[in-house]
Amino acid sequence: MRAVTLCAALAALVAVAAGRYEPTWDSLDTRPIPGWYDEAKFGIFLHWGVYSVPSFGDEWFWEYWQEQKWPQYVEFMEKNYRPNFTYPDFASQFTAEFFDPAQWADLFKAAGAKYVVLTTKHHEGFTLWPSKYAWNWNAKDVGPNRDLVGDLAAAVRNRTDIRFGVYHSLFEFFNPIWLSDKASNFTQVTFPAAKSIPELYELVYGYEPDIIWSDGSSQAPSSDYWGSKDFLAWLYNDSPIKDRVVTNDRWGTDAGCAHGDFFTCHDRYNPGVLQKHKWENCMTVDRYSWGYRREAKLADMLTMDDLTKELAETISCGGNLLLNVGPTHDGRIVPIFEERLRQMGEWLGINGEAIYSSKPWTVQNDTTTSGVWYTQRDGSVYAIVLDWPAADGVVLGSVELPADAKVAMLGYTEPLQWTQAAKGGVQVKFPDLAKVSSRWAWVLKFDDAQSVESNRL
Amino acid sequence: MRAVTLCAALAALVAVAAGRYEPTWDSLDTRPIPGWYDEAKFGIFLHWGVYSVPSFGDEWFWEYWQEQKWPQYVEFMEKNYRPNFTYPDFASQFTAEFFDPAQWADLFKAAGAKYVVLTTKHHEGFTLWPSKYAWNWNAKDVGPNRDLVGDLAAAVRNRTDIRFGVYHSLFEFFNPIWLSDKASNFTQVTFPAAKSIPELYELVYGYEPDIIWSDGSSQAPSSDYWGSKDFLAWLYNDSPIKDRVVTNDRWGTDAGCAHGDFFTCHDRYNPGVLQKHKWENCMTVDRYSWGYRREAKLADMLTMDDLTKELAETISCGGNLLLNVGPTHDGRIVPIFEERLRQMGEWLGINGEAIYSSKPWTVQNDTTTSGVWYTQRDGSVYAIVLDWPAADGVVLGSVELPADAKVAMLGYTEPLQWTQAAKGGVQVKFPDLAKVSSRWAWVLKFDDAQSVESNRL
Amino acid sequence: MRAVTLCAALAALVAVAAGRYEPTWDSLDTRPIPGWYDEAKFGIFLHWGVYSVPSFGDEWFWEYWQEQKWPQYVEFMEKNYRPNFTYPDFASQFTAEFFDPAQWADLFKAAGAKYVVLTTKHHEGFTLWPSKYAWNWNAKDVGPNRDLVGDLAAAVRNRTDIRFGVYHSLFEFFNPIWLSDKASNFTQVTFPAAKSIPELYELVYGYEPDIIWSDGSSQAPSSDYWGSKDFLAWLYNDSPIKDRVVTNDRWGTDAGCAHGDFFTCHDRYNPGVLQKHKWENCMTVDRYSWGYRREAKLADMLTMDDLTKELAETISCGGNLLLNVGPTHDGRIVPIFEERLRQMGEWLGINGEAIYSSKPWTVQNDTTTSGVWYTQRDGSVYAIVLDWPAADGVVLGSVELPADAKVAMLGYTEPLQWTQAAKGGVQVKFPDLAKVSSRWAWVLKFDDAQSVESNRL
Amino acid sequence: MRAVTLCAALAALVAVAAGRYEPTWDSLDTRPIPGWYDEAKFGIFLHWGVYSVPSFGDEWFWEYWQEQKWPQYVEFMEKNYRPNFTYPDFASQFTAEFFDPAQWADLFKAAGAKYVVLTTKHHEGFTLWPSKYAWNWNAKDVGPNRDLVGDLAAAVRNRTDIRFGVYHSLFEFFNPIWLSDKASNFTQVTFPAAKSIPELYELVYGYEPDIIWSDGSSQAPSSDYWGSKDFLAWLYNDSPIKDRVVTNDRWGTDAGCAHGDFFTCHDRYNPGVLQKHKWENCMTVDRYSWGYRREAKLADMLTMDDLTKELAETISCGGNLLLNVGPTHDGRIVPIFEERLRQMGEWLGINGEAIYSSKPWTVQNDTTTSGVWYTQRDGSVYAIVLDWPAADGVVLGSVELPADAKVAMLGYTEPLQWTQAAKGGVQVKFPDLAKVSSRWAWVLKFDDAQSVESNRL
Repeated sequence: MRAVTLCAALAALVAVAAGRYEPTWDSLDTRPIPGWYDEAKFGIFLHWGVYSVPSFGDEWFWEYWQEQKWPQYVEFMEKNYRPNFTYPDFASQFTAEFFDPAQWADLFKAAGAKYVVLTTKHHEGFTLWPSKYAWNWNAKDVGPNRDLVGDLAAAVRNRTDIRFGVYHSLFEFFNPIWLSDKASNFTQVTFPAAKSIPELYELVYGYEPDIIWSDGSSQAPSSDYWGSKDFLAWLYNDSPIKDRVVTNDRWGTDAGCAHGDFFTCHDRYNPGVLQKHKWENCMTVDRYSWGYRREAKLADMLTMDDLTKELAETISCGGNLLLNVGPTHDGRIVPIFEERLRQMGEWLGINGEAIYSSKPWTVQNDTTTSGVWYTQRDGSVYAIVLDWPAADGVVLGSVELPADAKVAMLGYTEPLQWTQAAKGGVQVKFPDLAKVSSRWAWVLKFDDAQSVESNRL
Repeated sequence: MRAVTLCAALAALVAVAAGRYEPTWDSLDTRPIPGWYDEAKFGIFLHWGVYSVPSFGDEWFWEYWQEQKWPQYVEFMEKNYRPNFTYPDFASQFTAEFFDPAQWADLFKAAGAKYVVLTTKHHEGFTLWPSKYAWNWNAKDVGPNRDLVGDLAAAVRNRTDIRFGVYHSLFEFFNPIWLSDKASNFTQVTFPAAKSIPELYELVYGYEPDIIWSDGSSQAPSSDYWGSKDFLAWLYNDSPIKDRVVTNDRWGTDAGCAHGDFFTCHDRYNPGVLQKHKWENCMTVDRYSWGYRREAKLADMLTMDDLTKELAETISCGGNLLLNVGPTHDGRIVPIFEERLRQMGEWLGINGEAIYSSKPWTVQNDTTTSGVWYTQRDGSVYAIVLDWPAADGVVLGSVELPADAKVAMLGYTEPLQWTQAAKGGVQVKFPDLAKVSSRWAWVLKFDDAQSVESNRL
Repeated sequence: MRAVTLCAALAALVAVAAGRYEPTWDSLDTRPIPGWYDEAKFGIFLHWGVYSVPSFGDEWFWEYWQEQKWPQYVEFMEKNYRPNFTYPDFASQFTAEFFDPAQWADLFKAAGAKYVVLTTKHHEGFTLWPSKYAWNWNAKDVGPNRDLVGDLAAAVRNRTDIRFGVYHSLFEFFNPIWLSDKASNFTQVTFPAAKSIPELYELVYGYEPDIIWSDGSSQAPSSDYWGSKDFLAWLYNDSPIKDRVVTNDRWGTDAGCAHGDFFTCHDRYNPGVLQKHKWENCMTVDRYSWGYRREAKLADMLTMDDLTKELAETISCGGNLLLNVGPTHDGRIVPIFEERLRQMGEWLGINGEAIYSSKPWTVQNDTTTSGVWYTQRDGSVYAIVLDWPAADGVVLGSVELPADAKVAMLGYTEPLQWTQAAKGGVQVKFPDLAKVSSRWAWVLKFDDAQSVESNRL
Repeated sequence: MRAVTLCAALAALVAVAAGRYEPTWDSLDTRPIPGWYDEAKFGIFLHWGVYSVPSFGDEWFWEYWQEQKWPQYVEFMEKNYRPNFTYPDFASQFTAEFFDPAQWADLFKAAGAKYVVLTTKHHEGFTLWPSKYAWNWNAKDVGPNRDLVGDLAAAVRNRTDIRFGVYHSLFEFFNPIWLSDKASNFTQVTFPAAKSIPELYELVYGYEPDIIWSDGSSQAPSSDYWGSKDFLAWLYNDSPIKDRVVTNDRWGTDAGCAHGDFFTCHDRYNPGVLQKHKWENCMTVDRYSWGYRREAKLADMLTMDDLTKELAETISCGGNLLLNVGPTHDGRIVPIFEERLRQMGEWLGINGEAIYSSKPWTVQNDTTTSGVWYTQRDGSVYAIVLDWPAADGVVLGSVELPADAKVAMLGYTEPLQWTQAAKGGVQVKFPDLAKVSSRWAWVLKFDDAQSVESNRL
């Protein structure tokens, strides 16, 4: 056993020496993640597919209705459709007539996003590009009659400097080839070679994405089944995007939270503590669904307080935030989502220097005052304060400042008054809120900050 | 001529003496408006109909497409429908499957609304109740298969103390009976007797509304054509709702802005000065449409600053505000509208005492500082300040206070500091914004205020 | 009583003397039926409407499903449509895209028809012309987007000498105005004046039909309710079609089989004996439905033997035959109907001289041999023999011929051999069937025939 | 070359000796066709698929519309559908709600058919069974929500002794895998292994058909591309249906009219002369389409004269007749088709002994009288006479009878009169047509007939 491990490690070293990656985690894990990704910090996730037609429940509609037979889904269908209506019958109603990719791109730009990830294929198997491996089950052949992936990629690239990423589900709920492999306990390995991997090649060659956001791998291992490692080795060695592409960790049962350029671990992953490996917190504005659902109420939507909190926590702990909104079957990003995105852009327009290209600081969140999260960049330390403090200001137990230090607030022109706090750290008085341009959360900037010793690990 | 006028006046007096109204404006105008209406101040307007199916452009879709042939409507149809598709063909797609009147009622309550007005029939002629005068062109016979008017009325009344009103259009764009009357230059008077007036009786007997919000009268006179005055005389004398019903002024070419319990004059009527007669400002969250339109962007939505400004101006000048949102074809009030409505409720929850049951003050808006609007109630004067002032506070040139007067801000617990202003009036210092619960606009309350002499008319 | 009758009769005489009809049956009944109708003998009936969309059961679909709740209709809807789907929802699927009126007209011509009657409005109330009294419930406003009545009338008149007739239902299953009148036990008389009669005027002025084929009158009387007699008096006196229009007898409970230019009495009326008043046998190729129904099987279709038998019986007894086929929702007369119609045309092409412009003979059907029916024309007597006889020929007990009489068969060139029959009448030998052009039934022609004394009434 | 041929022949012999077929034509061609097929003579062909939804033009709708862009197809779509409607969008409208396989089976029985062949997959690629190789493009996943193949197979087998066959298209118009292979000039061979051949295995294992009616092979060779010979070797050697399955010849460019259990050569193949190899004439009732098309007129339908002529010619020359009708999208075989089928059954009920299990005679068609076709069975010779002769009867130049020979007519009880014809052959007098039960064509039966020497080849 140890010999094998040693052997693999040696092979990896040889490959690295040759400038090439081997299809082993040992080797693949040596690849440095392209720098742009960590600097980007904030991306937008889009879940769009045939589930956007019933637009009820969530994007697992097909599974919950037909396989799990959850009553609310069964009743929804009984109430609104003829008895023999099938899920694939929805596809012809996926019309996308209002889809204006330029408008979307401009919105993402206004939101302050640095990358966008589109579900080019979710677990339903419907591809938003004209895949030759999903004939008559893709957005060109049925429904929109349009290459949604290509059109969005072009608009994003032509109008903005936003990076374009593709979400892709390895497995498909009801694909009979998949089900047959699964029934064999994955001793039969037909589906990856016939479907998933060829699709990934199509995506790479066709759209040269900056991110491959893999999903749906959790039922089978990367090597013996999915063939992920071979694909990644090719992707990193020989693909046209090898120098810039970034991938996540959902490449097999053995990969999650363990291998890949960045870790996603699980949906809405937000560990709250610094991670050793680059990671991403993918989460949703609608707290109950990734896909658009018509019955969503305002109370189901995260507020800007929720969103700035998620952002602060995530960035402070070394993650990226990937914020999801679900477009409608007719191609719109509805105003409530537009509002959240534009307000994120408003916040980032004021406070972005604490976010973009930042690094985690020695300390992530303040030990004295909860709701204060730190980042650093270019020699400055930033404290993101989620709650406006009482009149005497906020006490930051983790910050140590020289007596002549200047403390600023982003979006406020004057220096802030501060004092050494009684029990260590500093106490910063907040200005007149009426003169502050930032909303929802406020960023303090320290140019000479040190972290208090006791806070160190 | 003068004899006739005199005669009519005498007849009116006789009728009044007898406790009855004559079908003349002279008589009808003597009716005192039921008090609840002026006290209510804030209502919600709902435009819902077959136009909610194409949900494009606005609620005049049919007219603009087929009669005016506006290119954007023509192109929309050419792009998305088969060539012979007609407007009435849309009706079977008006499904309303998500319509939950209890949920709507609760939302209107949360919004602080005191009344709601539903378009029971817009210019398209489609009735949201099963009218016997609109067979197969109503929401029970085609589409929703439901009495939308009855279901909403019941929910509103069962769950809230909100008043229920009905919008009703007298004319119908393409009703051939109407067109025939119109072609006769209204010498033929078939349509009102066969259609509009019978519908109004159905509405009164069927739903006993608190408001009849008439519309679509502007092409023909009230007496010689619409028969409005006879209807109103019956409504005020003998109908089951005679003691509480309130009507607007759209009852004929001669009535607009001249007769009726309250005046609407024109859409988005907001005169900015005190009116002698009770009036209403009906306006929309989506600034370009009353009906829901899918292409609406966030920038098309009024902000809370816009909305509180409208409210302040309207109430100060003696009007009511009727704020419109358009439900979707499947029966939803989308989250962006829900958000605006709940935020209105939030604002009114704090500041409602300056609005509900208030009266206009001697002065409407401050002459020194723009963006300050006054109301009064129970001996107090209220100044609604739309913009948070600079640090030295707001100067109110129209207010005179005794030296020991107390000035308060709604949503703030402490008394405010104030001084006599140099050039007359008072200067009120605003508190720490961070301690104020109100957003978007702030209400100052003066218990002993007098208006400055120079401001008087 | 007798005085009243006398009085009415006198009034009628006066009116006739004045060249005008009074709105009384006594007067109206004096009108001679325009000659063309009796000469025409054979017409085609078309049942086409919204019921052609579900195209299941029959043209009473709405009534059976919603009012009678017959299980097969209820189940059909449950199985194939969403729960809230309504009958009027079908209308937008009435597309008529294959409707080619020129093609239809040519087919009717080929069928030997001399008139055609279209259901311009059946009991569902949907008008196939753009009636101003059926707004949004007519073929121009919803569905076909076309004046089906006008287009068919024009084609029939431009391409053929076929007369154009309009079927029109006085009552409407679910029209609320009708239901309200009915609920009043017809003491309220709103519907006829508001709907049925105005529609009839529209039809007369708009399409100048040769036939008004009224239906749906059977629940109320002609005078006190329907106003039929006034309409007929106008129609006969002053309408633009007064000299040629022909009407049937369905004008009220008191009219059926008693008044009108021709009697229909009941559907598929075929009395089998000579009638004193002109009558019509309206019947269907599909023996179970007037409207097209998709589930019809071949066995449900009348054969040519059935059809020639109906024709022979009907014409012999003084009736006209009105043969119905139901077009499809997309505007087709399906091939099985086309085949029957063309075969009728084939038969009439050979045997028409025994039919068109014929008169009943002294005897209608032969007393010795069943299945033999007589007509006469221009001095000749015709025996329509439905069954090809055995080798020794057919014995006609009702015919007396001089010894040198010539007997011919239509569609066969040689004279036939015949002898005096033993028990009276004649025995006619039939030729070699292989040389006979007629199929299904054969016509013998006698130039000097007398009817046998004993057969006289 | 000769050595190779010799070698292959030897291999085939060896395989045959071993009771097994080699995947070479030499070997496969040695397989004797199961006897039932030649005895069956008459089958019914069913073209049913997504093209049954537009039901316009013919079953190549997709190709003609989208690839050939024929104007009538392009216009049909422009006139009746929204611009972006795609062919796969039709699938959800393939409802089959009237499909009653028991009814169909009974009809086929009544038609006298001995086998039925269903298009389980036409060139559009849509499978009527739930194929795992046509996910979301099959009748279970989209549209009917039903295994149409399984349901029909079960009904046919449970209710009749009719054999069940499957039509299957090897190529698919627009399948991208196929197009990619084709673009490579078939140097790439992905499609057969991934799609066509696996489907054939599914059909064999799933439905154990009696016939595999292959189609769509004409663009590529059987061995180097389609893999047909390997499949056939398996089918003949090891499949569960090896003893009874029959296949046609459309297995590759090299196979048509050259290899296979029976030859079809080309659509409507009817060579008119005796063939050395078993063959089949597949043809249609609607002369212009295999799939149902709504615009078909009666004149487009073959008459019974046409059909009996086709049958006589085909059987006389050693072929089978496979008569096609196209079911509708909602699952019906329309009455005009039902009528033709039942009339075929009527004819075969009388004349079947000249058809079923018959063999070609020495002579196929009479040289003296055209329109006379011969078969033989159990020592009798049958002459199928298509046109009823003149009074002196039919002269059959090809028949020689002993003087005491008896001549009969099927469907007629008496022996026929005949004489030796002047110029050789016989002259048969026909009976009184009125006493003959057969229609459209008549069969003479000779028990001791010899063919006239001069007619021999």
